[in-house]
Amino acid sequence: MIKAGIIGSTGYAGGELVRLLKQRDDVEIIWYGSRSYIDQPYASVYQNMYEIADDICRDDDMARLAEEADVIFTATPQGLCASLVSEDVLSRAKVIDLSADFRIKDVGVYEEWYKIRHASPQLIGEAVYGLPELYRNEIASARLIANPGCYPTCSTLAVYPLAKEGLIDADTLIIDAKSGVSGAGRGAKVDNLFCEVNENCKAYGVAGHRHTPEIEEQIGYAAGRPVVLSFTPHLIPMNRGILVTAYAKLTRDISYEEMKEVYDRYYGKERFVRVLPKDVCPQTRWVEGSNYVDVNFKIDKRTGRVIMMGAMDNLVKGAAGQAVQNMNLLFGLPEDAGLKQVPMFP
Amino acid sequence: MIKAGIIGSTGYAGGELVRLLKQRDDVEIIWYGSRSYIDQPYASVYQNMYEIADDICRDDDMARLAEEADVIFTATPQGLCASLVSEDVLSRAKVIDLSADFRIKDVGVYEEWYKIRHASPQLIGEAVYGLPELYRNEIASARLIANPGCYPTCSTLAVYPLAKEGLIDADTLIIDAKSGVSGAGRGAKVDNLFCEVNENCKAYGVAGHRHTPEIEEQIGYAAGRPVVLSFTPHLIPMNRGILVTAYAKLTRDISYEEMKEVYDRYYGKERFVRVLPKDVCPQTRWVEGSNYVDVNFKIDKRTGRVIMMGAMDNLVKGAAGQAVQNMNLLFGLPEDAGLKQVPMFP
Amino acid sequence: MIKAGIIGSTGYAGGELVRLLKQRDDVEIIWYGSRSYIDQPYASVYQNMYEIADDICRDDDMARLAEEADVIFTATPQGLCASLVSEDVLSRAKVIDLSADFRIKDVGVYEEWYKIRHASPQLIGEAVYGLPELYRNEIASARLIANPGCYPTCSTLAVYPLAKEGLIDADTLIIDAKSGVSGAGRGAKVDNLFCEVNENCKAYGVAGHRHTPEIEEQIGYAAGRPVVLSFTPHLIPMNRGILVTAYAKLTRDISYEEMKEVYDRYYGKERFVRVLPKDVCPQTRWVEGSNYVDVNFKIDKRTGRVIMMGAMDNLVKGAAGQAVQNMNLLFGLPEDAGLKQVPMFP
Amino acid sequence: MIKAGIIGSTGYAGGELVRLLKQRDDVEIIWYGSRSYIDQPYASVYQNMYEIADDICRDDDMARLAEEADVIFTATPQGLCASLVSEDVLSRAKVIDLSADFRIKDVGVYEEWYKIRHASPQLIGEAVYGLPELYRNEIASARLIANPGCYPTCSTLAVYPLAKEGLIDADTLIIDAKSGVSGAGRGAKVDNLFCEVNENCKAYGVAGHRHTPEIEEQIGYAAGRPVVLSFTPHLIPMNRGILVTAYAKLTRDISYEEMKEVYDRYYGKERFVRVLPKDVCPQTRWVEGSNYVDVNFKIDKRTGRVIMMGAMDNLVKGAAGQAVQNMNLLFGLPEDAGLKQVPMFP
Repeated sequence: MIKAGIIGSTGYAGGELVRLLKQRDDVEIIWYGSRSYIDQPYASVYQNMYEIADDICRDDDMARLAEEADVIFTATPQGLCASLVSEDVLSRAKVIDLSADFRIKDVGVYEEWYKIRHASPQLIGEAVYGLPELYRNEIASARLIANPGCYPTCSTLAVYPLAKEGLIDADTLIIDAKSGVSGAGRGAKVDNLFCEVNENCKAYGVAGHRHTPEIEEQIGYAAGRPVVLSFTPHLIPMNRGILVTAYAKLTRDISYEEMKEVYDRYYGKERFVRVLPKDVCPQTRWVEGSNYVDVNFKIDKRTGRVIMMGAMDNLVKGAAGQAVQNMNLLFGLPEDAGLKQVPMFP
Repeated sequence: MIKAGIIGSTGYAGGELVRLLKQRDDVEIIWYGSRSYIDQPYASVYQNMYEIADDICRDDDMARLAEEADVIFTATPQGLCASLVSEDVLSRAKVIDLSADFRIKDVGVYEEWYKIRHASPQLIGEAVYGLPELYRNEIASARLIANPGCYPTCSTLAVYPLAKEGLIDADTLIIDAKSGVSGAGRGAKVDNLFCEVNENCKAYGVAGHRHTPEIEEQIGYAAGRPVVLSFTPHLIPMNRGILVTAYAKLTRDISYEEMKEVYDRYYGKERFVRVLPKDVCPQTRWVEGSNYVDVNFKIDKRTGRVIMMGAMDNLVKGAAGQAVQNMNLLFGLPEDAGLKQVPMFP
Repeated sequence: MIKAGIIGSTGYAGGELVRLLKQRDDVEIIWYGSRSYIDQPYASVYQNMYEIADDICRDDDMARLAEEADVIFTATPQGLCASLVSEDVLSRAKVIDLSADFRIKDVGVYEEWYKIRHASPQLIGEAVYGLPELYRNEIASARLIANPGCYPTCSTLAVYPLAKEGLIDADTLIIDAKSGVSGAGRGAKVDNLFCEVNENCKAYGVAGHRHTPEIEEQIGYAAGRPVVLSFTPHLIPMNRGILVTAYAKLTRDISYEEMKEVYDRYYGKERFVRVLPKDVCPQTRWVEGSNYVDVNFKIDKRTGRVIMMGAMDNLVKGAAGQAVQNMNLLFGLPEDAGLKQVPMFP
Repeated sequence: MIKAGIIGSTGYAGGELVRLLKQRDDVEIIWYGSRSYIDQPYASVYQNMYEIADDICRDDDMARLAEEADVIFTATPQGLCASLVSEDVLSRAKVIDLSADFRIKDVGVYEEWYKIRHASPQLIGEAVYGLPELYRNEIASARLIANPGCYPTCSTLAVYPLAKEGLIDADTLIIDAKSGVSGAGRGAKVDNLFCEVNENCKAYGVAGHRHTPEIEEQIGYAAGRPVVLSFTPHLIPMNRGILVTAYAKLTRDISYEEMKEVYDRYYGKERFVRVLPKDVCPQTRWVEGSNYVDVNFKIDKRTGRVIMMGAMDNLVKGAAGQAVQNMNLLFGLPEDAGLKQVPMFP
């Protein structure tokens, strides 16, 4: 039995972690951390958990948690995990950080985009970027996992094979992303009220969203050199789901079949990446509630560009599901343990 | 390994059956019946099933299916199951009918409300109404299960304890129900287009909805005499969920605590019925994707009435989940096998 | 040119007042009151008003406003208008209060349901309940208008003719209402976040909603005696719209034609009440953005009940539109001046 | 009094034309054309029009209509207008075609993208592209108006100033658009059912949408040479609204102030184009129900690109509103006659 603690269990990503872990027999949640709801029953915050998770929310106490837990998930605002984690903690428990604190290797880039002083830069080098499809082996032996951002997960998986194979000019890469509202969190803000979001579509963070350097870093590894790209997220009136539409110039003429073979080579054996049939566009509804990422591409001969697409549930593969996938790797379990949910439709 | 066949697998209830059964190791779907999509891959109809259910849709063939399957689910329009089922079929396989064909014991009532001639009235007597919370034992030994309607399931479970205990005057019973759009099925009708349903609320089937006699029959059994009640369904712009708000005159003064004790007595040990804490109203979001029914009540001293409430996922406890629950009973499995999904929120 | 001031112009009802008044040539808004946004451009709060209402929000100053304005709208929380209005104010300007402060004639009932001490009970007697279809003449000569609540407007108009004619037993009246989310206001609360409301349906204020005594008072006037009824509102995932489904026992056998004639007698000449054709149920989408209330009824011979239905835009006929209708009456203008908007669909 | 006929009055764009024209005193709709609903009351198709448009739908009869009407709107599928219009018709009535038949000057391009043989190519030359902000003078004296497509209207207005001024490299132009579902029309298709669209986001028509050549033609005029660009539309779960996010390489270093001055020069006096303040992104909710297009831009120094944005109501400025704007120009009326609707929010 794996003992798991969650710091930040009452945000949407934390709630999704609880949902996923509560369906397992081999994991026990021993700590429902929540600064906002200390001493309140977890099920009073998330009534779906009534009779399922009848525990009480507790304050953050990373040191004590490290003693009691085998794995600690931090689903907390930027900066908090970095301020709580330490060599001592890591010597006792695995840490999977769902925030951005350890995703970016260059601490200067992190501090510039997040406007936060990093509290434990000495641990950045050790942290492993928790995208199993790219870093499966490194994850298995890590102590500290930087669970990827939602947009970066979907963007990177959609674009990676073509960038890695040199089939696209990474300098022309434009990523236009669309996200459901759960990505904005559960904070009480006018901007996220039903009437403000419903029947509406808008871009935000234009030319400045903080997931940009994270995507650039991963695509840069694929391209073998630093990459600067355009990334624009949009808010869509739906609860869950991210859709990525990415554009880039092709470096050479290429057929559908050849490009399909590239994607299949990278993802054919991946449990959670589905390369769709020709001309079938990814849709968020087809992955909802599951850990899948659906990807596909369309070659546009007229413009010499390829359009790469990806769809994903932002709370599962984009957050909690990927964290569980990483936990499975850390503990030598089948990668899909507890992640066999069939996408729910409608 | 239980071999299951589904006739009508490409409607929303059929699709939900596939979702639930595909997460199990002890059930194999051997027949994806669909008159509309014969010879097409099931995953081309429901792309969420890509790489999960890569089978081909087949025409209806109840006779052959009865030979190959242990259990047959019919998720089909009214009248079809009654026309296909027979003594011969029932001697070979269990049949769980998700349509209304065998729910109403009085064939005259069925024919009057459904405007259909019943094709096999001789089987109505044998059929067991598949509401496990009321008929668990009868279900276990049945050959033919009449899986309850969505509204009747939620309405009956919300009202039953008070009707059975004689605490309400059943003649004053008014049931006002609200349903998500998946209850209307996947037929291509203008009325169910996104722009027609979205940002809209309406009543339909006022004083004439066909679930009315089914509810009346079950509440009548509880009351010990025939009951005539008002039932009005409404269409709500959401995919899933049924909410029932029921009103009735109390037959005597009663405290919250006493009434709570009644509900707890009926449902305290039920795996899928949650009696909520005082003053917590059921909400459809707290049960989405799960087999739970959440119920609660509010005594109104001013009016001498009680307001009974229930919330449920219409595709799970209201259709496919309840069918699976019945299947579990038929095959001597734990009642919650394959039904442990934690409600998904948001 | 009528000079209008709005106290509380940045709530949803206030914003709707601005929308309606800005389409007129005979009204000038001279005061955009908003405690929350003092000194900020109105269009920065409601960007739809960019280049349309480029004024600055100002603090509340009822005294000064009374000097400058011909009519003052208060779209403010309960209690505020009563604390600001006075004989001096009323001697200078007409006041249309969109809050509940002057709707209920019995100050004890008001204070019991609203848990507020009424700050100017001496003005309650003078205030006229601003439902033009019932009190047109009184409104025309009033100084202080109590603009009705959203639920009471729709409920009263749906039920009034039958209660007044004695065709229903008012003691059996049950009103089950459904509302869009704008009725909950623009406050930043977790409960009104998109992900909390979307894909959800719930009852709230069960057996205790504060619009109950307001409805009871009006229906009581119709019935000629005090009435106690059940009223249950529900929250629906849509921006606008209220749907009312009301149930009552008929006092005698009556035909469709006779009852239709009753409704037509009351509403046939009403500009904003549409009695729909037989068996056409009111739907909120058909009145959106307009000042219409659509009503209809269905006689249920089986139960001896009638189901009365009404649909309305809660921000127009349920708030700002009705306030404008009252303003028109106060100033001797055509009742539909500035209210000729055709409902917008989809 | 202008006499107007509408062919295709029961589609969503046709319905919106009726809504807009019915609010005017100077226009009379004399013909509600609808092949699908011949002899049925218009208000039975669009119940919002009850007591407003109580006319009967009639079959298409362009010849007779040309005799009776001053202006004919065709809101019909591609190909129909071209097959009905003629020199004879144009000599009697103005024609405003909301379909694509006369938008593209090169008939070969039209036939290639629309897979239709053009039935009256001899009239293409005479037709004026009805984008008043670019072709105001030509429209005023035209007989046949090609009312622009929804995506092309929003895309062109967002991009035009920078393309015309040579500030962007048109070869790098990528337009990523998002549309509400009303753009898909009122046809009964499974793909447009509520449960299929709700809680979903997808791209469609990737590298092949038929609005592409229309946008290319207009941007080509601006750039002074043929342009090939990428255009990808997405379906968003909302009724109305189009959002365009366009990306292009800057041809030189330019400040915000200088670029703002360019936009203001083109649109400062435009009644229906609002250039938003710095860093305020267009949102569809701020223009809903109105004829406005909101535009803005963001210079991204890191990538050397500019992101151009536009938001619009697809049924108003993207269809019926623009048609009315064109009608106003044709008849020498103020351009905003009947188009003064303030955007409705929420």
